[in-house]
Amino acid sequence: MERERRVGVLDTTLRDGEQTPGISFTPEAKLKIALQLDEIGVDIVEAGTAIVSEGERKAIKEIANAGLKAKVCSFARMLREDLDAALDCDVDAVNIVVPVSDAHIQKKLRIDRETLRERAIEAAEYVKKHGVEVEISAEDASRADFSFLKSLFQDLASVADRLCVCDTVGVLTPERAKEIFSELSGMGFTLSAHCHNDFGMATANSIAAVLSGAEYVHVTVNGMGERAGNAPLEEVVVALELLYGIKTGIKKEKIYETSRLVRNLAKMPVAPNKALVGDNAFTHESGMHVHGTLADERLYEPFDPKIIGRTRRFAFGKHTGKASVKMALEEMGIPAENVSESHIRSIIERVKELGDKGKLVTDADFQAIVEDVLQIEREERIKLLDLSVVSGKSVQPTASLRLSVNGDEIVVADVGVGPVDAAINALRKAISGRGMNDLRLEEYHVDAITGGTDALVNVVVRVSRGDKTITASGVSEDIVLASVQAMINGINRLYRY
Amino acid sequence: MERERRVGVLDTTLRDGEQTPGISFTPEAKLKIALQLDEIGVDIVEAGTAIVSEGERKAIKEIANAGLKAKVCSFARMLREDLDAALDCDVDAVNIVVPVSDAHIQKKLRIDRETLRERAIEAAEYVKKHGVEVEISAEDASRADFSFLKSLFQDLASVADRLCVCDTVGVLTPERAKEIFSELSGMGFTLSAHCHNDFGMATANSIAAVLSGAEYVHVTVNGMGERAGNAPLEEVVVALELLYGIKTGIKKEKIYETSRLVRNLAKMPVAPNKALVGDNAFTHESGMHVHGTLADERLYEPFDPKIIGRTRRFAFGKHTGKASVKMALEEMGIPAENVSESHIRSIIERVKELGDKGKLVTDADFQAIVEDVLQIEREERIKLLDLSVVSGKSVQPTASLRLSVNGDEIVVADVGVGPVDAAINALRKAISGRGMNDLRLEEYHVDAITGGTDALVNVVVRVSRGDKTITASGVSEDIVLASVQAMINGINRLYRY
Repeated sequence: MERERRVGVLDTTLRDGEQTPGISFTPEAKLKIALQLDEIGVDIVEAGTAIVSEGERKAIKEIANAGLKAKVCSFARMLREDLDAALDCDVDAVNIVVPVSDAHIQKKLRIDRETLRERAIEAAEYVKKHGVEVEISAEDASRADFSFLKSLFQDLASVADRLCVCDTVGVLTPERAKEIFSELSGMGFTLSAHCHNDFGMATANSIAAVLSGAEYVHVTVNGMGERAGNAPLEEVVVALELLYGIKTGIKKEKIYETSRLVRNLAKMPVAPNKALVGDNAFTHESGMHVHGTLADERLYEPFDPKIIGRTRRFAFGKHTGKASVKMALEEMGIPAENVSESHIRSIIERVKELGDKGKLVTDADFQAIVEDVLQIEREERIKLLDLSVVSGKSVQPTASLRLSVNGDEIVVADVGVGPVDAAINALRKAISGRGMNDLRLEEYHVDAITGGTDALVNVVVRVSRGDKTITASGVSEDIVLASVQAMINGINRLYRY
Repeated sequence: MERERRVGVLDTTLRDGEQTPGISFTPEAKLKIALQLDEIGVDIVEAGTAIVSEGERKAIKEIANAGLKAKVCSFARMLREDLDAALDCDVDAVNIVVPVSDAHIQKKLRIDRETLRERAIEAAEYVKKHGVEVEISAEDASRADFSFLKSLFQDLASVADRLCVCDTVGVLTPERAKEIFSELSGMGFTLSAHCHNDFGMATANSIAAVLSGAEYVHVTVNGMGERAGNAPLEEVVVALELLYGIKTGIKKEKIYETSRLVRNLAKMPVAPNKALVGDNAFTHESGMHVHGTLADERLYEPFDPKIIGRTRRFAFGKHTGKASVKMALEEMGIPAENVSESHIRSIIERVKELGDKGKLVTDADFQAIVEDVLQIEREERIKLLDLSVVSGKSVQPTASLRLSVNGDEIVVADVGVGPVDAAINALRKAISGRGMNDLRLEEYHVDAITGGTDALVNVVVRVSRGDKTITASGVSEDIVLASVQAMINGINRLYRY
């Protein structure tokens, strides 16, 4: 029976996810995300809370009318105005939040259990009368009186399509989740699990719920949501499918692109060490791990990153070993067998030295070390001789550069939307028509700057020509100088090998 | 029996945590972190891998001789040179990694199981001969042949002090962890659990191991580590103590400051939605949650944030409701009962409008809206009339500002380490001696910039005077202008109410 099992996915990135403090999506962004969620196979898209604002209603309505295969729902309190606002948006389902713990009932709603029961039934019936599906989100269910929860669910089961146990403040454990869901599913209810990550266990709790009878999981992309967020779609889906053999219907190979889309539209950073979708999730640096991964890809990876649409990456740093160096030499077109062991040791030594200083070692840094150790003649195609930038209020940001390009000294100037943009525009102007027309700036990245205005700024660029891509960095207290240095470092390496 | 139970904590932030791609700690940073880990009550500090580099050995030796209450250990392979390097650092314990899955034994080490067994025993005995403790880290144990693992542990139990089951690629589930640890602990071994977070279940797996007999957990601060990182110290400790009633000996009230220290020294971002230590973990924005939290703090929080040394925060945004607005009006010195319902609705409307545009609503934004709605006369103490900034290579970054301060027009200039620093220095010069001497810039933050050099830059500052603190932001394609605007917005609000 378990062999054929499939769990339904309700994604609430656009509702609970958007309740992330400081985050809001424009209606256009909401539509884009909804289309993507539909594309990857989510069953229900919770598009927002209609009562919130005019923009919200516009967004929900557009999504509801966008022809998705997925059902579209709005969140609503038991209030008539909330329900009407949701129904006005042409949704397929309304998710009615019903606080069920005594603290919530008494201190927030200031009513008693029986009044709550009446209101919940009334709200559910009102929505059903409009021919729209109802999900009941039993808020704070994990801290509610369990007998009351059971009796409430019994009364609602005949009206509602789904009954959701919400671990609103994330205090559930897998053990307790199994008790709760086993007992409730034994009563014949169609259950959903809505887990928060306050103790870091939202994924494990969601899975425990599924193992004990939950038919739907509520998730958000990248684990967005109130406080520490909700159970992340990527973790719950991939763990269920790969570790437990339970299907979700989600196109796993599109999980990473979905994560990137939401990351970009939410402008909310994803930690490098975020499971599955963080930048480092399939990156190897330490000698032991790189060596192992080159011997057999499965040694230091839980599964092939392609399964979720990602690729493997190797990085240089303090823990770099021989295997990485040899591989990178080959990529530079230097046959590793022509390089002596002592040279390789020196290269590793120098990489580790940089690492000991706490610095990120980019491709460009690595190549500079190799050239130095192997005494490969360096002839930088571009040297920065002078840079001046002017900007301000009512001042057109302007930069002038004096450069040596292929041995010729040239002076260029250009403008931009800001001082960095002006300087980089001038630099691009200088090299275009000098054999470097195929340069593309793939990514310009500045680490978040925190502390004071005199903090060191670390700029990392990814530049490419044809199918060759390279990372390079520049560091300075001056963001303009750091940016120009990063670009020049990258260009000099890119047009060599 | 469970009542008195205490689990030991081995922190490997300085070893596995430092293997995070792109991260390395200077020896000074390592010492600082080790002292903090000792202060909060970690039992064993894994300080690094001695064989890695000269800087690494210096750091480990210093930590080993720093008089910590905690034991200090080094990671090592079974190789004699690794073990000697570790022993030379005066450590209390050596953590010997012994790959135990067939894939690792055959494809990485290219030996057979029996050769591995001999080498492991030999390595453990060699270290013990030096009077130093041994922990065996059974690498990839979760994918190893379980009978072989048991027989290997049986042979090593008489030599080693601790036997660690490593879920090297994070494929364990709580269910499987319970099976493995129950059986092994039934055999009388002293066990540790080392869990990785590839599927987002490191915390749940570590706890499952503890519930089934593990006496030590391996953790890292902020969940740093290879790929998706290790089980986070904060999650494992706080969940064990608060949800399961199992003691760890960790001073929980120092967990947040420890997280901040490591975040700053690693220069590795922590996601806003990271459980317990992320910026949002105790932040409330949505109307329902703020209203609830003001009625009773426990409604929307798993526990009092003070327990881990944090404070609660309220934020404004698209989901703001009446409760937040009334509270903030009081903080501005405007009695909420004097403000009509229709004005409050207008304020909420305007906050939501900003939110609908996808913008973070800072304190300063909120106050500007309130002033506008209540027609409170605005008299900005500072107005920016002109700004010019020059910087570059071999150019001393210099800024000049023309400002109206308290109605007087003044012109100031100053230099700095970069254009932003120069502009902010000039601004501070302009206001000092004009009744704003007590201004402090608590934090200057620029969101990571990703995309192109023409991306909008969002600068957020936290400025304070006395015990009053305010956030304000500035947005522009020009980072200098955005920074100056953010400061002026903050100052104008701070010196009003």
